[in-house]
Amino acid sequence: MKRTHKCGELRPENKDQEVILSGWIKSRRDLGGLIFLDLRDRSGFVQVNIEPDAGEELMSLGNSLREEWVISVKGKVRCRPENMINKKLPTGAVEVVVQDLKIENKARPMPFNLDDDKVNEEMRLRYRYLDFRRPALTEKMVLRHRITKTLRDYFDDQNFLEIETPILSKSTPEGARDYLVPSRVHPGQFYALPQAPQQYKQLLMVGGLERYFQIARCFRDEDLRADRQPEFTQVDLEMSFIDEEDIYSLLEGLMSRIMKEVKGIDIPTPFQRLDYFEAMTRFGSDKPDTRFGMELINLEPALKNSEFKVFADTLANGGRIGAINVKGGNKFATNKTIKEWTAHAQLYGAKGLATIQVKEDGSWKSSITKFLKEDEVAAITETANLEVDDVLLIAADSFTTSCEVLGQLRLHIAKQTDMIPEDQWNYLWVTDFPLLVQDEETQDWHAMHHPFTAPHESDRDKMQSDRGSIRARAYDLVLNGCELGGGSIRIHDTQLQSEMFDALGISQEEAQHQFGHILDALAFGAPPHGGLALGLDRMVMLLTGASSLREVIPFPKTAKASCLMTQSPSPVSDDQLEELSIKTDVKEKSE
Amino acid sequence: MKRTHKCGELRPENKDQEVILSGWIKSRRDLGGLIFLDLRDRSGFVQVNIEPDAGEELMSLGNSLREEWVISVKGKVRCRPENMINKKLPTGAVEVVVQDLKIENKARPMPFNLDDDKVNEEMRLRYRYLDFRRPALTEKMVLRHRITKTLRDYFDDQNFLEIETPILSKSTPEGARDYLVPSRVHPGQFYALPQAPQQYKQLLMVGGLERYFQIARCFRDEDLRADRQPEFTQVDLEMSFIDEEDIYSLLEGLMSRIMKEVKGIDIPTPFQRLDYFEAMTRFGSDKPDTRFGMELINLEPALKNSEFKVFADTLANGGRIGAINVKGGNKFATNKTIKEWTAHAQLYGAKGLATIQVKEDGSWKSSITKFLKEDEVAAITETANLEVDDVLLIAADSFTTSCEVLGQLRLHIAKQTDMIPEDQWNYLWVTDFPLLVQDEETQDWHAMHHPFTAPHESDRDKMQSDRGSIRARAYDLVLNGCELGGGSIRIHDTQLQSEMFDALGISQEEAQHQFGHILDALAFGAPPHGGLALGLDRMVMLLTGASSLREVIPFPKTAKASCLMTQSPSPVSDDQLEELSIKTDVKEKSE
Repeated sequence: MKRTHKCGELRPENKDQEVILSGWIKSRRDLGGLIFLDLRDRSGFVQVNIEPDAGEELMSLGNSLREEWVISVKGKVRCRPENMINKKLPTGAVEVVVQDLKIENKARPMPFNLDDDKVNEEMRLRYRYLDFRRPALTEKMVLRHRITKTLRDYFDDQNFLEIETPILSKSTPEGARDYLVPSRVHPGQFYALPQAPQQYKQLLMVGGLERYFQIARCFRDEDLRADRQPEFTQVDLEMSFIDEEDIYSLLEGLMSRIMKEVKGIDIPTPFQRLDYFEAMTRFGSDKPDTRFGMELINLEPALKNSEFKVFADTLANGGRIGAINVKGGNKFATNKTIKEWTAHAQLYGAKGLATIQVKEDGSWKSSITKFLKEDEVAAITETANLEVDDVLLIAADSFTTSCEVLGQLRLHIAKQTDMIPEDQWNYLWVTDFPLLVQDEETQDWHAMHHPFTAPHESDRDKMQSDRGSIRARAYDLVLNGCELGGGSIRIHDTQLQSEMFDALGISQEEAQHQFGHILDALAFGAPPHGGLALGLDRMVMLLTGASSLREVIPFPKTAKASCLMTQSPSPVSDDQLEELSIKTDVKEKSE
Repeated sequence: MKRTHKCGELRPENKDQEVILSGWIKSRRDLGGLIFLDLRDRSGFVQVNIEPDAGEELMSLGNSLREEWVISVKGKVRCRPENMINKKLPTGAVEVVVQDLKIENKARPMPFNLDDDKVNEEMRLRYRYLDFRRPALTEKMVLRHRITKTLRDYFDDQNFLEIETPILSKSTPEGARDYLVPSRVHPGQFYALPQAPQQYKQLLMVGGLERYFQIARCFRDEDLRADRQPEFTQVDLEMSFIDEEDIYSLLEGLMSRIMKEVKGIDIPTPFQRLDYFEAMTRFGSDKPDTRFGMELINLEPALKNSEFKVFADTLANGGRIGAINVKGGNKFATNKTIKEWTAHAQLYGAKGLATIQVKEDGSWKSSITKFLKEDEVAAITETANLEVDDVLLIAADSFTTSCEVLGQLRLHIAKQTDMIPEDQWNYLWVTDFPLLVQDEETQDWHAMHHPFTAPHESDRDKMQSDRGSIRARAYDLVLNGCELGGGSIRIHDTQLQSEMFDALGISQEEAQHQFGHILDALAFGAPPHGGLALGLDRMVMLLTGASSLREVIPFPKTAKASCLMTQSPSPVSDDQLEELSIKTDVKEKSE
């Protein structure tokens, strides 16, 4: 009984063929002495009939069958009568009449109903191998495979080499928390699992490999949120003798090919480009969702002479008075709605939210009207294009807070009011990120990306004098308001690298201690180079329409970084620890 | 100065074209006011001339250049005069006359001569990024990429899904030593890095994925030999509803495609098949090298009535009297040679080695002649096809020791005497391995592969009565005497799995504790399935002719599991350890 066909591929063209199928019994119905089975394999399912003609023995075998048992059947394909055709199913026009049947394996009753989409996730994760029997999950695995295959084909066509970098790597002080691996051969020493192959890929450029890519596993021991996993997969690439334009056109070609291959959609290229400043001022985000409007409005011109203290102080301190206009919002925004929006704004750091609701008669309902002069009211009306039923939400704060708060409100309200078209794929580049950002508390300067990111040549003279305004040669690729990935042109010059460490307040000794091998490498003839990393899990999630990363990772972990299926992590033996020269040191928690 | 061409691709067809090249100065020669540079990029190198016509400024810039500096040049392609053509170089018929030049980066003097193949490996590993500038190393990376790309294309064509399994996995008691990763969220608990995705791939089959493959990183914390690395890459696959024949033809198709694509060679299929017993008796190895003869000879028929105590005892104990005939060996085998062969045999467990040297006159030089009857001498001569100048090496011992010793001698002497043709690619299958092997010391039975390997159905009745003779449905793929990989058809039936644990002396409780989730999974409707894993590093090593795994792994570790480039493993901070609830516990070593 060796299978000749897949369940899901049978069609009326197979009429009268003798086929052998293997798979799982998805369901079973008995009807007037007939047994109907839906037999399922990876390709889909088809109806299989055991009919009295097959003889008593087969009927009795058929009667013993249960759901999710594994069987092989030999039978003849028959077309269903016109009125019995199930047009919703690819195999709905045929059925297989069984001549022979073999039970390959029995199955215990399932711990949950495989067809029920509402089963709790914990149960699904514990029995992940059963969850795979749901076509919705398996289809995501198929699409993930398709996407990575397309990626690899594309990079191969573009003369890239896929090169594997180590998982047993070195702990570095920057970045997120490392996962550590104790060394047995070197007692007291540890490997770290890589957070990204960043240093290796730059070293490959120094080595002259020129075009590297890898679909690389990365690890971060961070407190998990809904959209994070302790291990994740990154599409990592680096190129030599290139500039930003090469990266942009490479990635635009890649995403076009993936969209075409996986979704059958032609997307327009080149992608829109927004520099960081424009993205923040228009969308209040460094990953703007441009599928809808409601862009941020700058009220400074309208209010530059305002005597209202809040506005005047904001502008005097170099802050920003921004707003968004919820067109027609007054038709549905109750007091409760406005309150909820204000709370949402506060969540993102706003001290408060000024609101103007334009009533049917054109008059304003607003607590700030009394502080505004007549020409200011007119100017606001014009600048914000305020019309009857509009609601204007105003955030006066530091530049960043004002923009971010409005950006978050913009997204929040758009979702609430179904403003976001589902079938649009807006790819864009955000460019020219700040090179350095200052910690408001400690006043320390940090690299916004990492200390190897190159500044714009024309901003190099500000490395000491005006660190906050240096633009990095860094870019992010954004899809529908999600960051797919990002990268930068790197520093390849040791002198510039020194200046960068100076600007970060890192001494040359400290730099040598932390990044010795990469600084050495730069001094041995590093070519101009740059690269990018894409989050593969996120990309697959967006392209499959999944609602969480756990749906696109074959064996995901929970928010507590556990695998419910294998019960990992788990205790290990004392012998194992002794060999590794470590001891556990668990502090009692006072609960 | 954005490059238009690669150095290695310029040909006479490019004559008179203006090109921009970027790369590293491989070498520089000055000759009568001319400067000749060899400019190298990943594609190769080409000669670049700076000639006085270019002007003083360019000449002086040219004079400042040093080896391994990174430059871009603009220039015109010129054909070399007939007598100056270097036919050994792909670009040997052209040169580029420089019109403009930009120094992209300077370089410190190299720590070793890149062209010198004799530089010690430690130095190369420390500066791996410079070692990549040797074309010999980079070519192996290119070939590795080519091989993995071909693999992926093939499996995709065959309807396999590449599915990523976790690196943060669970520690299991069987197999080699695990690398452990302490969990921060679950104090006192550990993840393990996977030794292979064995259990995950079987779970995927239970989930109905049917055809899984992965190019997977695996980890074993073992004491390293020359041909081992702490992390290595495995081509891992599993299929449902198949038998051995499907695996064989799948892999034969794969290797054919790789050989064609990578080496341009058509290899014959199907591959030869030898069962374990035949491999051992003919070649003394479960991974026979069939590129040469000198097969093992069974002398039992010739000596079954021998009165020589050593032979008689061997046969009485169920052992074996085997031999190999080194044809014409007496022409070069001195007493010293024979002594060295005997020592080699002892290395593999032989108590001694009986030898017969056939002299020019047909008489024997042998210490055992005196124990042999005339008809035995005749029988040996005939069985072993003994002729003038032959040397017969006889090992009488247990079956396994006799075979293994002769197998090792066969290889050793073949190498010594250049019997192995270099340009042959002998692929073969070794099948029907023993399912269970007994530890000679403890008398315990172990699974030769793993406890999920299926026995031949016809041997199932021996699961208790005759464990040593049960044949497993296990197979190895062998190339030129090296094991490329292996696998088996798995047990998919819980009853049979129970019998297997019984045969191994593992109680059901213990089995449930160790393998609970996979035993559960088998009970929920596991399909018949089987698979295989190939060592990718080994395969690349064989196909590239590399002499060590370190030459085909981009960033390898030393025999002490260290990365000399990044100085990993390394100490970490106490804070890091405290967060992970562990302490180091390094015992002072008394040296």
